Amino acid sequence: MRPLALDPNRLLPADPTTRGIARELYDTIADLPIVSPHGHTDPEWFATDAPWNNATELFLAPDHYVFRMLYSQGIDLDALRVPKRGGVVPDTDPRSAWRLFAGNYRLFRGTPSRMWLDHVFAEVFGFDRLLDAGSADHYYDTINEALTTPGYRPRALFERFKIDFLATTEGADDPLDQHAAIRRSGWGGRVVTTYRPDSVIDPEHEEFGTALAKFAELTGEDVGSWQGYLRAHQKRRADFRAAGATATDHGFATARTANLSTIDAEALFGRVMSGKWDAADAELFRAQMLTEMAKMSVEDGMTMQIHPGATRNHNAKLFASHGRDKGADMPTRTEYIESLRPMLDLVGNEPNLTVILFTLDESTYARELAPLAGHYPCLRLGPSWWFHDSPEGMRRFREMTTETAGFYNTVGFNDDTRAFFSIPARHDVARRVDCGFLARLVAEGRMQDWEAHELAYELTNGLVRKAYKLDQTLPQAAAA
Amino acid sequence: MRPLALDPNRLLPADPTTRGIARELYDTIADLPIVSPHGHTDPEWFATDAPWNNATELFLAPDHYVFRMLYSQGIDLDALRVPKRGGVVPDTDPRSAWRLFAGNYRLFRGTPSRMWLDHVFAEVFGFDRLLDAGSADHYYDTINEALTTPGYRPRALFERFKIDFLATTEGADDPLDQHAAIRRSGWGGRVVTTYRPDSVIDPEHEEFGTALAKFAELTGEDVGSWQGYLRAHQKRRADFRAAGATATDHGFATARTANLSTIDAEALFGRVMSGKWDAADAELFRAQMLTEMAKMSVEDGMTMQIHPGATRNHNAKLFASHGRDKGADMPTRTEYIESLRPMLDLVGNEPNLTVILFTLDESTYARELAPLAGHYPCLRLGPSWWFHDSPEGMRRFREMTTETAGFYNTVGFNDDTRAFFSIPARHDVARRVDCGFLARLVAEGRMQDWEAHELAYELTNGLVRKAYKLDQTLPQAAAA
Amino acid sequence: MRPLALDPNRLLPADPTTRGIARELYDTIADLPIVSPHGHTDPEWFATDAPWNNATELFLAPDHYVFRMLYSQGIDLDALRVPKRGGVVPDTDPRSAWRLFAGNYRLFRGTPSRMWLDHVFAEVFGFDRLLDAGSADHYYDTINEALTTPGYRPRALFERFKIDFLATTEGADDPLDQHAAIRRSGWGGRVVTTYRPDSVIDPEHEEFGTALAKFAELTGEDVGSWQGYLRAHQKRRADFRAAGATATDHGFATARTANLSTIDAEALFGRVMSGKWDAADAELFRAQMLTEMAKMSVEDGMTMQIHPGATRNHNAKLFASHGRDKGADMPTRTEYIESLRPMLDLVGNEPNLTVILFTLDESTYARELAPLAGHYPCLRLGPSWWFHDSPEGMRRFREMTTETAGFYNTVGFNDDTRAFFSIPARHDVARRVDCGFLARLVAEGRMQDWEAHELAYELTNGLVRKAYKLDQTLPQAAAA
Repeated sequence: MRPLALDPNRLLPADPTTRGIARELYDTIADLPIVSPHGHTDPEWFATDAPWNNATELFLAPDHYVFRMLYSQGIDLDALRVPKRGGVVPDTDPRSAWRLFAGNYRLFRGTPSRMWLDHVFAEVFGFDRLLDAGSADHYYDTINEALTTPGYRPRALFERFKIDFLATTEGADDPLDQHAAIRRSGWGGRVVTTYRPDSVIDPEHEEFGTALAKFAELTGEDVGSWQGYLRAHQKRRADFRAAGATATDHGFATARTANLSTIDAEALFGRVMSGKWDAADAELFRAQMLTEMAKMSVEDGMTMQIHPGATRNHNAKLFASHGRDKGADMPTRTEYIESLRPMLDLVGNEPNLTVILFTLDESTYARELAPLAGHYPCLRLGPSWWFHDSPEGMRRFREMTTETAGFYNTVGFNDDTRAFFSIPARHDVARRVDCGFLARLVAEGRMQDWEAHELAYELTNGLVRKAYKLDQTLPQAAAA
Repeated sequence: MRPLALDPNRLLPADPTTRGIARELYDTIADLPIVSPHGHTDPEWFATDAPWNNATELFLAPDHYVFRMLYSQGIDLDALRVPKRGGVVPDTDPRSAWRLFAGNYRLFRGTPSRMWLDHVFAEVFGFDRLLDAGSADHYYDTINEALTTPGYRPRALFERFKIDFLATTEGADDPLDQHAAIRRSGWGGRVVTTYRPDSVIDPEHEEFGTALAKFAELTGEDVGSWQGYLRAHQKRRADFRAAGATATDHGFATARTANLSTIDAEALFGRVMSGKWDAADAELFRAQMLTEMAKMSVEDGMTMQIHPGATRNHNAKLFASHGRDKGADMPTRTEYIESLRPMLDLVGNEPNLTVILFTLDESTYARELAPLAGHYPCLRLGPSWWFHDSPEGMRRFREMTTETAGFYNTVGFNDDTRAFFSIPARHDVARRVDCGFLARLVAEGRMQDWEAHELAYELTNGLVRKAYKLDQTLPQAAAA
Repeated sequence: MRPLALDPNRLLPADPTTRGIARELYDTIADLPIVSPHGHTDPEWFATDAPWNNATELFLAPDHYVFRMLYSQGIDLDALRVPKRGGVVPDTDPRSAWRLFAGNYRLFRGTPSRMWLDHVFAEVFGFDRLLDAGSADHYYDTINEALTTPGYRPRALFERFKIDFLATTEGADDPLDQHAAIRRSGWGGRVVTTYRPDSVIDPEHEEFGTALAKFAELTGEDVGSWQGYLRAHQKRRADFRAAGATATDHGFATARTANLSTIDAEALFGRVMSGKWDAADAELFRAQMLTEMAKMSVEDGMTMQIHPGATRNHNAKLFASHGRDKGADMPTRTEYIESLRPMLDLVGNEPNLTVILFTLDESTYARELAPLAGHYPCLRLGPSWWFHDSPEGMRRFREMTTETAGFYNTVGFNDDTRAFFSIPARHDVARRVDCGFLARLVAEGRMQDWEAHELAYELTNGLVRKAYKLDQTLPQAAAA
């Protein structure tokens, strides 16, 4: 039997002087509330406050970080009870899926998944022995038992986790019923939505047609005309703001933007709507729409997030059998300097616009992103993302962006997760890594101690509140 | 006179806590046998067990790491007795070449060559003073004297170095006589071959025509027909397996793969064989053949290695005068996500296939390679390669791949060398750097101590044996 | 009130063992004279020895590192008294501009600008409290007062800073009057020029036409003919050598070179001169001219510097209102292996040619630049540049280049600045970071202590003198 004991100094640098400074910094911010301005939790959890089912459905089947690693070592997704295309759940016994996971827990050594899971197991469920084949059943039964108790329901955990703000992400075709239910319920948790209109913007999105129909229905606009289509976006952005949204989010394969004349934009839109478009049209339309979204943000004040560079569904066979979000998305080389130029030419110098850039291509941190954010008033750098949301990834982000962009052009941490239980673990990792980085600057005489203290707060709570305008009142109707 | 004394803690992190952990890990694996699954030693050495000639011919003239550095500082290759095109040896006195090398030994400060050479000088020859102009003759005479003694012959050193497994690399046109001679000799060392068919696959290879003729002769197949050509590969793969091979190896300028229909493949093959091909055809043929090789690996179980991204013979004048492998190969930017897709569409999910990916482009570690290997069952990551086979390169490899791919999707160390004497030094560097990395994870509370011990063994002996199937029996005849 | 006190051990690694070694190394080179072989100070300063005006015009208005960061946070350039296009100075009170800067000094936390400025404030002006809103006026008055005294004039500071050699940079159309004035003045400071002919080479340069006219006038050559144009370059190179130049410098968007036949070069030149060129012609002409410059360097011995990869004037609106060099230049991905090939085919093996390569794309350090410099006799690596001229940037440069190129294919530090006061600070940062890197190699048993001492000198004074031929006599007339 192997113990599970979280090292209270985990992730702080080993050098005693640096660790001492880091520890002191960390102690001042460890218990600050969590601000989670971008993620993928399900608003229904907070609307209904229904309990979760069991350990397998909670931690294994929905977490692509977890099952992709198991899959990479030849473990079948059915045996892990990962749903197939259309949500069809294999008839694997959830307990045996859990045992398979537990018996292969060693595969996660050195990965952030391991740190997040251990944190959840120790801090949220109180386990003191490590997950392995021998403890699998103990874990499974203990977790399932806990999930039936009131303290493990969504709202109770939201409060236990000291979450101050939590943004979910919904499509432009979403009626926002769950968010309405949350607000109607009178529960005080600040759970808001984020406007993510990819499925009504990207002609290559598999749900483009249906999403567009719903978009028309929800807005009452003629989305077949360019002006009607833009008005529909404005209306839905207002709907989202009414549901608490302060931000939009956009995730395409590239960061390309465009700034077409109205005539060219209408012609392009016509091709897209008539179905007579090719791949270049689709790319150009996404590019044009990023600029349109930026223009709307100038009007309505919504912070704009751009998450480019993921090649989705790389594994064709797995996509056919299991559909999206099954751990087969791959990062790709991403270009920003020329790609963003058309949008920046138009709105780059707007002082009240905030555009947060993310990347899956770390080679752009020092070469493109920090120089851009260190100049353009509208730009800020999102934290290290997805594959790079990890201790080494966070360290590289700070090392490669700070000297050119400074700290004040960054926006704190995003957990970007649908794994609700792991939110405190993820924020804790970021806080520790950032304190370690600040401590190194202090230990190397590059920053004064009191400055590091100010920054530890900024990186945890200050900058995120400002970048996502959490303390501002945005216009509650469409500007146009 | 400057002493030569290897620091027993070399390459372990300087922080005392971390060093203590690293030292403890290292002590458990320092003396494990060497498994060398990929390299370029000459099987003739082990077939004949003939002594080596002298220090210059052993350490200087054949080692492109060494003479490229000297050349970069304006030192003439003739003066170093580096052979010209066709193997013509300049009539430089080998002792004066050695003196020139010794007098410029400072150039290697901070390079892995320096560490490898010092290790060989201290551990294999017992020198206790540093190589420099003053000690050049002492070195030269001592080494030459030693080489005449039985203990410095290939087989004696193989045993002294505790080499458990050593793979050489031969072309598809190689009759494997030396390997046959090794087996006939009754000597017990496990020296095997590796199937490297580049010269019969790449129409742009300077030996394509002659290699193909030999390929036909050795197999008795009509290599002018697509089916005969494929059968010839199957036969030769079987020959190589009979000579102990467990793996194939492929090194082209890109990682591009293709999956053409049989009709298109035959048409392409026809153009290649008729000499009516252009550069795009050559690239497509190499791409198609990577997929064909993967398909054959599914059948016959041979592990497939892909070493892409070297621009060969960049220095045109030097190539004209001195030929291949003269230190003028350059890495190039390499793309994997789209390049490997056709092959992965076909065989990516095969649980029994192992494809080991290497790179000369470190920007792909975190962005492309770790995400691919952390998902596809068939993929594993080869260690940091060539220019990156160095302490800093190894550290970056672990820091940039572990969090996404874990440790278990990697395959331990490759020395990839023809410098036989340096094999223990190279493996020792890898063991030390890996122990330093593991120790940091332990010191930072990111891994438990006993887990690091398990991993230290895996990274040294466990994973390599599995990835290269050293303990499996592969089919001894072609599958088709 | 916050103190300003430079940590005497700043930038040295925190680990006590490593810091001790680094400190010992640093103590031996901290006071060595400054050799500044590449920068942008104004020779008029040394020709006239006139005092500077005030703190704002000295430290704020001309320093794009400083005002780009302030601008990125929404601060107006007019309010900072940054000159508009054509040098028009906004009528902002310089004191209020200074106060705005001081009140936002926190934005520079973690940036090299902060380290440089604090060094200047503490060491050159003797401040012992930090710059902030509260100390703004104290700073402003103290600095302005000091600037009126003899000790703060250019020549006095040149001597106080122990500058041994300082190269400025002038265009091919510059009459070099200031340099002539410096030499006529009898002052002993070695301030020399550098030949930077971009404006007469790049057809897309906004001053191409006027610069070319001046170029013709200064040389008396028919620059409308290809041979006359080349002779004009030879003459001006001789003029520059007569003004002490030992080097040329070339900064285009890419590193592309070409080696056209004379007929093709003449045809291309004809298109360029007739104005009938397109973007591809412009790129090819710059490429051809890099090779022509290299050929002339073979003749006249001038060291050639290539600074590729900056996308200039990215912010169109800002360029329209404020012109060049306003913090809106962005790095771009840069390719070297194929780009340099035509030039290297021609002159790569010339033992007396020195070509120093720089980059804004760190992904090329280990992949392209170190392998090239570790082979070609003519190539050397310039230090980490511009956005990467920073502690982390310097560390990455050493970590990513040393193992393949060694130390001896590098050339010491360049400050590359027009911020004269910051020159000692910048060299001090480089010395500290290099000593920290060397100390790590010693602490990890990868280098002997006495070797690190030799290298600390080489990286500070030795290699730069050799690479820039500071102790050689170059031919004082054009070779042709």
